[in-house]
Amino acid sequence: MSKKEGWAIGIDLGGTKTVVGRVDGQGKVRRKLLIPTHAPKGPSSVKEAVVKAVLTLLEGAGSLPVGIGVGVAGQVDAESGGVEFAPNLGWRDEPLREDLERAIGIPVVVTNDVRAATWGEWLYGAGRGCNDLICLFVGTGIGGGVVSGGRVLTGCSNTAGELGHITVELNGPSCRCGNRGCLEALAGGWAIALQAREWATSDPEAGDLVLKMVEGQTEKITAKVMAGAAKAGDPLALSLFERVAMALAAGAASLVNAFNPCRLILGGGVIEGYPWLVKKVAEGLEDRALPPALAPLRVLRARLHNHAAVVGSAALVLHSLGKD
Amino acid sequence: MSKKEGWAIGIDLGGTKTVVGRVDGQGKVRRKLLIPTHAPKGPSSVKEAVVKAVLTLLEGAGSLPVGIGVGVAGQVDAESGGVEFAPNLGWRDEPLREDLERAIGIPVVVTNDVRAATWGEWLYGAGRGCNDLICLFVGTGIGGGVVSGGRVLTGCSNTAGELGHITVELNGPSCRCGNRGCLEALAGGWAIALQAREWATSDPEAGDLVLKMVEGQTEKITAKVMAGAAKAGDPLALSLFERVAMALAAGAASLVNAFNPCRLILGGGVIEGYPWLVKKVAEGLEDRALPPALAPLRVLRARLHNHAAVVGSAALVLHSLGKD
Repeated sequence: MSKKEGWAIGIDLGGTKTVVGRVDGQGKVRRKLLIPTHAPKGPSSVKEAVVKAVLTLLEGAGSLPVGIGVGVAGQVDAESGGVEFAPNLGWRDEPLREDLERAIGIPVVVTNDVRAATWGEWLYGAGRGCNDLICLFVGTGIGGGVVSGGRVLTGCSNTAGELGHITVELNGPSCRCGNRGCLEALAGGWAIALQAREWATSDPEAGDLVLKMVEGQTEKITAKVMAGAAKAGDPLALSLFERVAMALAAGAASLVNAFNPCRLILGGGVIEGYPWLVKKVAEGLEDRALPPALAPLRVLRARLHNHAAVVGSAALVLHSLGKD
Repeated sequence: MSKKEGWAIGIDLGGTKTVVGRVDGQGKVRRKLLIPTHAPKGPSSVKEAVVKAVLTLLEGAGSLPVGIGVGVAGQVDAESGGVEFAPNLGWRDEPLREDLERAIGIPVVVTNDVRAATWGEWLYGAGRGCNDLICLFVGTGIGGGVVSGGRVLTGCSNTAGELGHITVELNGPSCRCGNRGCLEALAGGWAIALQAREWATSDPEAGDLVLKMVEGQTEKITAKVMAGAAKAGDPLALSLFERVAMALAAGAASLVNAFNPCRLILGGGVIEGYPWLVKKVAEGLEDRALPPALAPLRVLRARLHNHAAVVGSAALVLHSLGKD
């Protein structure tokens, strides 16, 4: 589906930093610029910095790209390419596609950053060649994307794929979304940190190693710290990740039974930090998912790592705007 | 999408009875035959009875149908139209499409009965005109179907839509599927009956009305009996359905967040028996689903009732085989 002749610019527009990359028709990042996102300076300033970086990449390219893809951490209006709401950027109803197209004169496609990462994994990562897959990205929060029958599902108002907010525990812990017992509230990075702080505080003996790692400052306990502790064999960290794995397996079973994918691709900072989870989720699925849904399934680790949104937003452009 | 000129035969092939209907291009059942499914006599006998009923309907029709659709309670191979596994019929790897086509000489399409019902609700029921919807059928078990971007999702091995087996309670009650805490294990008809029997037995005072309704025979307590008791204002039945509604709302929130449909259509015997659940699920979603996913959503009751699979399997035929 990639267009070997063409290339695209992919942009991962996040709340603190933005990556602008030149991506070839094989999904390789040929050159990239990392710029800070000065969100407090307002949308115009952020867009100007993005335009400047794009122009820098265009200058040395020798040919024009098929288009520019932007993956942004927020809700995107599929028709207009505007950003409806991006809390990390403080944006509401920002005409991103329109403004970038006017400034640069090249077609722009805007999508959510997690959706972009799904495009990337599908066309150039662990999902290559497969038409039915689920990407589950477990970072501070949990997001995802679904490819079904060779199409990335968007839903009726472009918000499909909020896989961190499937309920796995009816009366479970409060989630940041306002619901209870969401997958994210049990297995997202913020929830791991919260749980670890509670456990370490309530049982300092069990929390000994973890507390030493953060020099007694419980607020410095993060999912990353816990992954380090688990790797060192700390029982508290190990039992925390057992709990996380169980929640992920239950959520994955829901997704596998509902969508019947051939591949479940796990990525994001928590998975990168503690890849043991991939094996545990696969094992948990053996117990939990329906046999006919399990039969064709492979559980894989995401391949594009922190390039997923840059490669993916370029992939979306090459897929949707590229010439046959 | 319906073909007004054409008509089709729709067949709901169940474990105890089979309905064969003549369905017009507006999704109306013009004539139907109900025959017992003599599953113990073996597949050939069942197929012969179906063929006989189809021929009876064809005789009086005056024109040939576009095709014959069969919704069967089991797993279907999408390519061959064979029935891979149908526990209620005791079938394994039965070449249903092939045998019916050979006997009747008219194109046959075979699908799962719940998938068929989804087709029916989409094209001729509560989902008419909508391209992103979820059907959740709450009967003895719970099944469903998903339409996303104008296509019924099948998944990679044709088992997508097992919506009764999404986990809503990590360590919840055992499900018939082998997992724990499935939506079906909390809100399916069999689970309602099981829970009611336990409650009525352990607290005969609270179970007074229910026990009277079944003349003390707890094994006769069913979801239907409980719906009757709830309608009569029985506190035990009411609190049981509160619990059911809560599980359904949590499961519905998962589905709404993951798929972002415009309509959630609730049907099946438990919903028909106690339609109050539709309102409660809608209310629960207000608390549980993400606001951007909730914004475009309507929660509706299914419209085709026990005709859904007959109409739906005919709808599938008219949609996939009908001429433009």
